[in-house]
Amino acid sequence: VSVNAPRGFTASGIACGIKHSGNLDLALVATESVQGVPAAAVFTSNRAAAAPVTVSRAHLVSTGGRAAAVVVSSGNANAATGARGVSDAERICELTARSLGVSPREVLICQTGLIGIQLPMERIESGIGALVSARDSGPQLAALAAEAIMTTDTVRKEVVVEGGGFTVGAMAKGAAMLAPNLATMLAVLTTDAECEAGELQVGLARAVETTFNQMTVDGCTSTNDSVVLLASGSSTVRPTPDELAAALERACSQLASMMVADAEGATKVVKVVVRGAASLVDARRAARKVAESMLVKCSLNGEDAYWGRVLSELGSSGAEFVMDRVSVSYGGIPVCRGGTAVPGHDVDEVRAHMSRSEVEITCDLGLGEFSAEVLSCDLGHGYIDENRTTS
Amino acid sequence: VSVNAPRGFTASGIACGIKHSGNLDLALVATESVQGVPAAAVFTSNRAAAAPVTVSRAHLVSTGGRAAAVVVSSGNANAATGARGVSDAERICELTARSLGVSPREVLICQTGLIGIQLPMERIESGIGALVSARDSGPQLAALAAEAIMTTDTVRKEVVVEGGGFTVGAMAKGAAMLAPNLATMLAVLTTDAECEAGELQVGLARAVETTFNQMTVDGCTSTNDSVVLLASGSSTVRPTPDELAAALERACSQLASMMVADAEGATKVVKVVVRGAASLVDARRAARKVAESMLVKCSLNGEDAYWGRVLSELGSSGAEFVMDRVSVSYGGIPVCRGGTAVPGHDVDEVRAHMSRSEVEITCDLGLGEFSAEVLSCDLGHGYIDENRTTS
Repeated sequence: VSVNAPRGFTASGIACGIKHSGNLDLALVATESVQGVPAAAVFTSNRAAAAPVTVSRAHLVSTGGRAAAVVVSSGNANAATGARGVSDAERICELTARSLGVSPREVLICQTGLIGIQLPMERIESGIGALVSARDSGPQLAALAAEAIMTTDTVRKEVVVEGGGFTVGAMAKGAAMLAPNLATMLAVLTTDAECEAGELQVGLARAVETTFNQMTVDGCTSTNDSVVLLASGSSTVRPTPDELAAALERACSQLASMMVADAEGATKVVKVVVRGAASLVDARRAARKVAESMLVKCSLNGEDAYWGRVLSELGSSGAEFVMDRVSVSYGGIPVCRGGTAVPGHDVDEVRAHMSRSEVEITCDLGLGEFSAEVLSCDLGHGYIDENRTTS
Repeated sequence: VSVNAPRGFTASGIACGIKHSGNLDLALVATESVQGVPAAAVFTSNRAAAAPVTVSRAHLVSTGGRAAAVVVSSGNANAATGARGVSDAERICELTARSLGVSPREVLICQTGLIGIQLPMERIESGIGALVSARDSGPQLAALAAEAIMTTDTVRKEVVVEGGGFTVGAMAKGAAMLAPNLATMLAVLTTDAECEAGELQVGLARAVETTFNQMTVDGCTSTNDSVVLLASGSSTVRPTPDELAAALERACSQLASMMVADAEGATKVVKVVVRGAASLVDARRAARKVAESMLVKCSLNGEDAYWGRVLSELGSSGAEFVMDRVSVSYGGIPVCRGGTAVPGHDVDEVRAHMSRSEVEITCDLGLGEFSAEVLSCDLGHGYIDENRTTS
């Protein structure tokens, strides 16, 4: 159960032949009533945004924030495909809309996969009828949808969160994340809360900022990253902005953890916490610099608590930094204080923490009140093997 | 021949026991006359700068840009070592100065190796006498010095460049680079040109900006990066500022190429060229983003011409970017034009280029007159293996 768990939604997933493997590659999330409902979205900041991003953005603007369905395909990003890519994405929305009986503008589209290759439109076109017919509110259909959006993911990513009287359901794919990542992060969220489009947009933006935007795998920003939210209103519950944002944030946070845990070639998740920063910008910048560091990530892969690299990344992050104020701990065990080694710290205890699948590095800059957390993972051979070739 | 090739310099290198392997780890470059001469330096921008950086900076300020010698040690970075690290670095300068018969302020110090560990001062102190005694102007001694500054380097990095009547000699270590790198980049340059300290500083800064600062291996900035230049004046030739900068740039450029070629675990060097940018800042930012991309570097390792990743990095670099103006070529073969694939480009020819040890990716943003080049390398298992553990 995930995207069709909230009342008023259906889902489906099929294999239409975009992926040569024959795996599922086309998914649909649609309102049960087949009517436009309030919708919101957050898209990649990449200026090389893919055709589906362009099309979905335009649709949301033209409807003033309403959508009846989201169609998602995997295996081909439809990025760097020029005007043809845009008209192909429009065509997929049109055919889906016709099958459902709604306006094409009320269909959003998300795509993920290889860049620079035109879509196999014949296969997609011939699959849409079956995709729309198969849609259902049963949990098995949600699972098929969640599977159909996967690329290098090794597990489906689905969550359901209960708000006060309303439900949020969501599915995602991505072995990485929104602001940073090329493996593309896609998420489709649904809720039966009663909200206007503007409220959804604010709530979604808040949730994304503290979750998907505070993760990193490789520091690359995809051309296709998209997070879409539809609200059916079927619960007739109107959450406050804080209630809505909190429920969305819980859903996104769980998806974010799943994504980092499933990052390409990763063997462990690391939470980098920066405290005592002079500003929030500094805290986030410092945490991200440590979390993205190839050298820190290699140390994590080797389960080596080499805090010197952490210190060096903090110092080069651009955040305000005074060496003799800094302390670092691994799993709560202080290893560096006042900018130098903590003498006689328990090396075995640190080693035991480093061998866990979830590692925590906490840095205190000793300069102010601000803090930030970024989720990341280690860098192992698997990441390279996954990304060496596209074939 | 390298640092003692210009008239008026001597060099030496010994093993004093900092490295457990017994390899050479202590080097000296000193003026033959044992007198202070005009000197200049460029140091890391990392705010977690190591003790030797603090000490060398202070010495150069207090002498107004004069130095008689540079002592370099490898195996321990003397970074994150607090007040004791600074007094240890001062002590090394003092002992070297006493042995040479100069003021301690006229001795500069560079160190590279592991962060967060106090120096084995007894071993270093007992080695300094032998280091100073061994100094000579013969090529073998320069080679020993160049070897003694190596850490993960697999080859010595030495160059000699002839200016108009003056010579520049240099040695460097670093499997990476100045602005970005943790494997620490150190370079000691000497010249027999007759220059004032201010002229040297300007010339050196110009040379560093277009060479060491336009390379990348892992995007990490070391706590210890240092480039030091001494001018004996023994040639009695006074180069113009342009002549001086050109000779320094040639020396630094050769060292930079050697460093990228010897980068940890790298199997090939890539030159990323960005043309047609709206500004110089944009050109450099875009080239660096492509050059530092983990995904692009993985593709290079797999010899896969996946230009979609290049486009995506350009789009997320922050540089002005208009998708349908962009073209990309590999080794001069256009693979993307107007933001989409060049139909029917010679895939075999591209594959042949990708299999070379030197690969070139050229991107034209189609927006302006500005261009930039960044040297980088691929990302392979070797980089991870080198950096997983410190032991």
